[in-house]
Amino acid sequence: MLKLHGFPVSNYYNMVKLALLEKGVPFEEVQFFSGQTSQTLAVSPRGKVPVLETEHGFLSETSVILEYIEQTQSGKALLPADPFARAKVRELMKEIELYIELPARSCYGEAFFGMPTEPLIKEKARTELLAGFATLKRNGRFAPYLAGSELTLADVMFVFSVDLAVAVGKKVLNLDLLAECAEAGTLLAKLGENGHMAKIQADKDAAMPAFLEMMRARK
Amino acid sequence: MLKLHGFPVSNYYNMVKLALLEKGVPFEEVQFFSGQTSQTLAVSPRGKVPVLETEHGFLSETSVILEYIEQTQSGKALLPADPFARAKVRELMKEIELYIELPARSCYGEAFFGMPTEPLIKEKARTELLAGFATLKRNGRFAPYLAGSELTLADVMFVFSVDLAVAVGKKVLNLDLLAECAEAGTLLAKLGENGHMAKIQADKDAAMPAFLEMMRARK
Repeated sequence: MLKLHGFPVSNYYNMVKLALLEKGVPFEEVQFFSGQTSQTLAVSPRGKVPVLETEHGFLSETSVILEYIEQTQSGKALLPADPFARAKVRELMKEIELYIELPARSCYGEAFFGMPTEPLIKEKARTELLAGFATLKRNGRFAPYLAGSELTLADVMFVFSVDLAVAVGKKVLNLDLLAECAEAGTLLAKLGENGHMAKIQADKDAAMPAFLEMMRARK
Repeated sequence: MLKLHGFPVSNYYNMVKLALLEKGVPFEEVQFFSGQTSQTLAVSPRGKVPVLETEHGFLSETSVILEYIEQTQSGKALLPADPFARAKVRELMKEIELYIELPARSCYGEAFFGMPTEPLIKEKARTELLAGFATLKRNGRFAPYLAGSELTLADVMFVFSVDLAVAVGKKVLNLDLLAECAEAGTLLAKLGENGHMAKIQADKDAAMPAFLEMMRARK
């Protein structure tokens, strides 16, 4: 059986978890934290979460794991069969990752863990997030899902990246990112009603106190 | 016929160009620059280079374009057929992009265009690049290609990212990144002998003076 290594507070972990649940693929969860110890690096080459353990070995990098699951597991398709439509979903995934997730992530410390972010980094994050939300507004279909009428991997990334980016906007940048792209708010609400989201959120809530304690100890 | 939009100084553009040349896919080159004008954004949602124009429409994001070409065009395979082996190539591509290309890119202005990079950004780039090269050393096969015995898309990204990252190390960070991973130097040299690299380099050299002039005018 596939094993998903990571922890339920990680939004990248939860992307893979939602994809597995949506497809109905059985999997086991294994607690694993990012880090730079030799044990961690033997599992993940850059010491990151999540990791998928397969019968052939470990895989890192969320988008790589999502593609692998899609290619090897049965269940509901989360990518269209047509190559161009599939490429458009991947394009949206990439735009979310590079232009929303990464700049928002540079401010996670301040937004969620009481660790101040340097003003220069905040200024860059503001510029990039505004451009990132404009990109999504320009390229997303929102019909009602991000790439069209069906839920795809682009929505799976969207739901766990855009909500945190919106929180970063509010808490750190004094910026209402949903005002820049109202469609994103509507889609976030719709995806929040997905049947698997309640379980993922409950697992996250249950894991949060221990995670915050660990972050405090690391500071 | 496929049209590749961009300019021959862009390393992302050259990744797609090398893949097309390696596969023997006919294509036309169309000059196109990154930017935030409405004309540019109508072609690329984030105003980036390269863009692939297909019979179905435009595609942005290098890794998305590379996957699309691989999936739709005949010629030499640049991804293995086995799903796990294929995922390992994608994992290496992702590690190059996130942990080598992006931190190096944050210092391109200083390295190549005489625009100083903030000390904080350089410090982050140094830490990330050292971790990035360690990741490559840990996860690359170098046998003799990055993912094994055959040239893959991981090498296509490698040859155009790692050389610039090494230059950033030398020019901006006073860091010899190849000393951290001698295998990378050997592979760079081997890929440099690839028959298509001379043409790509010649096209880059020919386009460089006009590009530098444009960068100076933008400053």
